[in-house]
Amino acid sequence: MAEEAAVRAQADTVRRLKQDKADPDEIAKEVAKLLEMKAQLGEDEGKHKFVLKTPKGTRDYGPKQMAIRERAFNAIISCFKRHGAEVIDTPVFELKETLTGKYGEDSKLIYDLKDQGGELLSLRYDLTVPFARYLAMNKITNIKRYHIAKVYRRDNPAMTRGRYREFYQCDFDIAGRFDPMIPDAECLKIVHEILSDLQLGDFVIKVNDRRILDGMFAVCGVPDSKFRTICSSVDKLDKVPWEEVRSEMVGEKGLSPEAADRIGEYVQLHGGLDLIERLLQDPKLSQNKLAKEGLGDMKLLFEYLTLFGITGKISFDLSLARGLDYYTGVIFEAVLLHQENEHVEEPVSVGSVAGGGRYDGLVGMFDPKGRKVPCVGVSIGIERIFSILEQRLEASEEKIRTTETQVLVASAQKKLLEERLKLISELWDAGIKAEMLYKKNPKLLNQLQYCEDTGIPLVAIVGEQELKDGVVKLRIVATREEVSVRRESLVEEIRIRTS
Amino acid sequence: MAEEAAVRAQADTVRRLKQDKADPDEIAKEVAKLLEMKAQLGEDEGKHKFVLKTPKGTRDYGPKQMAIRERAFNAIISCFKRHGAEVIDTPVFELKETLTGKYGEDSKLIYDLKDQGGELLSLRYDLTVPFARYLAMNKITNIKRYHIAKVYRRDNPAMTRGRYREFYQCDFDIAGRFDPMIPDAECLKIVHEILSDLQLGDFVIKVNDRRILDGMFAVCGVPDSKFRTICSSVDKLDKVPWEEVRSEMVGEKGLSPEAADRIGEYVQLHGGLDLIERLLQDPKLSQNKLAKEGLGDMKLLFEYLTLFGITGKISFDLSLARGLDYYTGVIFEAVLLHQENEHVEEPVSVGSVAGGGRYDGLVGMFDPKGRKVPCVGVSIGIERIFSILEQRLEASEEKIRTTETQVLVASAQKKLLEERLKLISELWDAGIKAEMLYKKNPKLLNQLQYCEDTGIPLVAIVGEQELKDGVVKLRIVATREEVSVRRESLVEEIRIRTS
Repeated sequence: MAEEAAVRAQADTVRRLKQDKADPDEIAKEVAKLLEMKAQLGEDEGKHKFVLKTPKGTRDYGPKQMAIRERAFNAIISCFKRHGAEVIDTPVFELKETLTGKYGEDSKLIYDLKDQGGELLSLRYDLTVPFARYLAMNKITNIKRYHIAKVYRRDNPAMTRGRYREFYQCDFDIAGRFDPMIPDAECLKIVHEILSDLQLGDFVIKVNDRRILDGMFAVCGVPDSKFRTICSSVDKLDKVPWEEVRSEMVGEKGLSPEAADRIGEYVQLHGGLDLIERLLQDPKLSQNKLAKEGLGDMKLLFEYLTLFGITGKISFDLSLARGLDYYTGVIFEAVLLHQENEHVEEPVSVGSVAGGGRYDGLVGMFDPKGRKVPCVGVSIGIERIFSILEQRLEASEEKIRTTETQVLVASAQKKLLEERLKLISELWDAGIKAEMLYKKNPKLLNQLQYCEDTGIPLVAIVGEQELKDGVVKLRIVATREEVSVRRESLVEEIRIRTS
Repeated sequence: MAEEAAVRAQADTVRRLKQDKADPDEIAKEVAKLLEMKAQLGEDEGKHKFVLKTPKGTRDYGPKQMAIRERAFNAIISCFKRHGAEVIDTPVFELKETLTGKYGEDSKLIYDLKDQGGELLSLRYDLTVPFARYLAMNKITNIKRYHIAKVYRRDNPAMTRGRYREFYQCDFDIAGRFDPMIPDAECLKIVHEILSDLQLGDFVIKVNDRRILDGMFAVCGVPDSKFRTICSSVDKLDKVPWEEVRSEMVGEKGLSPEAADRIGEYVQLHGGLDLIERLLQDPKLSQNKLAKEGLGDMKLLFEYLTLFGITGKISFDLSLARGLDYYTGVIFEAVLLHQENEHVEEPVSVGSVAGGGRYDGLVGMFDPKGRKVPCVGVSIGIERIFSILEQRLEASEEKIRTTETQVLVASAQKKLLEERLKLISELWDAGIKAEMLYKKNPKLLNQLQYCEDTGIPLVAIVGEQELKDGVVKLRIVATREEVSVRRESLVEEIRIRTS
């Protein structure tokens, strides 16, 4: 009975934590411990109390959500295919060391698998590092591919805003040595096409270049060794005001106040070709080799985007930094603009829905001889898009079908199960999408009601008289019209009426 | 320098293990340790030697494999939709305790995540337990759904035969309280449709019922407490001969030799309606309530399968047991038959490609009040099917396209990059699948060669004269025919020629 006492003590711990409103993770952990102890004690006929939930930061997708999700996926996949991309897939986990040293400060958010003997594994954190590993491993130097799959981050979830620990990424990347800015421009065109197609409202695609940022840091007096950490401070500017970012730079990261203030002047700049031209004349920036290269390419990029007719939605923005370590050139991020209130002048940003950039060094980190394969790519943040589409659908009261069933095979009288089975089998074999109720003797009313509820447009009714006459009664649910169709013409009739 | 000595010692350990041809898992573990130690020592400019591989038992899918995979998925999804199924998705991991106690002896193969604070998690082992959790959590008592996703098993991989640690399952399940055997028969119809559609060669679907097995165990004198463990011995009969299974029952599991021999007589029986009728008259079995119920339902099932016209491929087989604990009624498994050699009389089974059964108790294990939702379902083992399709395609030399690109936008002279960008942008906006080479001045020959290599059927060629005349030269790759098309008719012309 020592075990029972231990269980009671553990139950007290859980109660106390709950009263104290302790960290939910900690509570969950203690609850899990309690349940394990209870399980070991032996259960009373399987009446063990489960915590009936999905893991923190994850969700199930029911049929309705899946229907919405497929709409969004279709728009994205169509676009990727329109641009000639192939598709690949990689495992959900990688050797732990494949991910090590690729994500900078974010590495702490990686999910590791338990060491159960064998290799040390981690869940993928994005699709870019696995892609680079794939290229190096297969010695591929030239590919345009998309990859749609789930990635995992032990981040603080904000599920109502579409931020999860398990979420889909939809990535499109172009790998290979090409003339400058042509693939980069195509990536921006793709973001523009997808966001337009999904009709998510107004958006802007911010663009910058890691070389411009690094050049800017250099001319502002940031020491080389602090480039990446100051870069990740700048990255916070879309969430917190400059004053806070500045005090992080000076306080936590030991940057001189003067350098910080000089950065402060640059990062408020955003514009188009005009701004690029101005910065190319900037007495300090124009002296920096990296910045000059970056600005030159940015100019070329804007020329190509002008040919694509999409500069209206592109903003060259010096405050854009992107969190990940591996970017080496152009970076970009698309945000939705949301006119919170018509009287507000400045549109409010509701968050990033796509991002990407150039990473010319990542594949080389995997290649045994360090051979580089230049890459540029874009990742569509589909979860945020889902939550918008989901909210919109709920507001609109549009009824969304979750199956594609064309016809319900029904019977008007009892004892016709065998006939229904024979007919539905014929329809399936002819490629017709058909259902029937799994009852021996269903009421006709219930069968019709099922069609109303699920949106099935047709009912094929078998009855004794029809069987004798070699016909089937076909009912059109919307109009309640009924026609008699010869059995051998039924498939064709259903096809015509549902095409 | 103590660290360096430690690294050298670790390197020796790895060398020794390799020489000794130790367990690959153990070697991999020590290698990982070595790499970690090296990494901590500090690397020489990123020249750290990666083990460039995917985790044991997993693989990447390149564009060609993905094209094959999508063919198979399309056949399967079409079938599931034809039968009116909705689709759901669940997270790749579950709370560890959600999976605990559902898989019997196989539980040791579950992947656990590392405890990084918070909940204890495991990767899903199949899609059935998450489905049951989903039903209980959302109080759903009636649904027909499919779910296609990856599952994870720390099993011994046999990759050439399509056995992986990460693999797709394609599940179709019907949950709800219905008249007997109607949904069960539909599951078998689905397996029949999919295997026929995929043209994998001849197959047989073995069918049995857990109640018949349990009844058989009872009349053979197996004590109740040994039903499940004797059942998992029977499950091995498709891989090892009866003598071995018998000695496991008697030796390891302590069954009396007489009981084992009685089982041995039953498990060699297989047949159709005739066998069911015979067993219904069997003096011992017919006295057992469970067996009688099971045999009665089996008879009904065969009647429905006769109406579906598929009994030719169905075999009632008393040796079929299925490994998982949760089945309560009908169980089935489809195996491909492979005529190894025309002179061999008996076809050789090359392995299971689909399986499933009825599990009426699983949802109740999750429901706080133990409310049951009867379920029956089928799982298609797609990896095995992939490897067959892949091998077949390799043998056939059929060239498989990995993109859907309709047209390459090319130029005949230099300095036409801008014109190519403008034209391709017009085509993309009109929904045409178009590519161009990412070079400023590509040679026409290289552009045409690219189309040959990738199977792009059309080339839209811009040249100075064409620009002046307001036309585009459209080349049909297969015939080398070239036609002049007015720019405003180009989209329509491409659509017609590629429809």
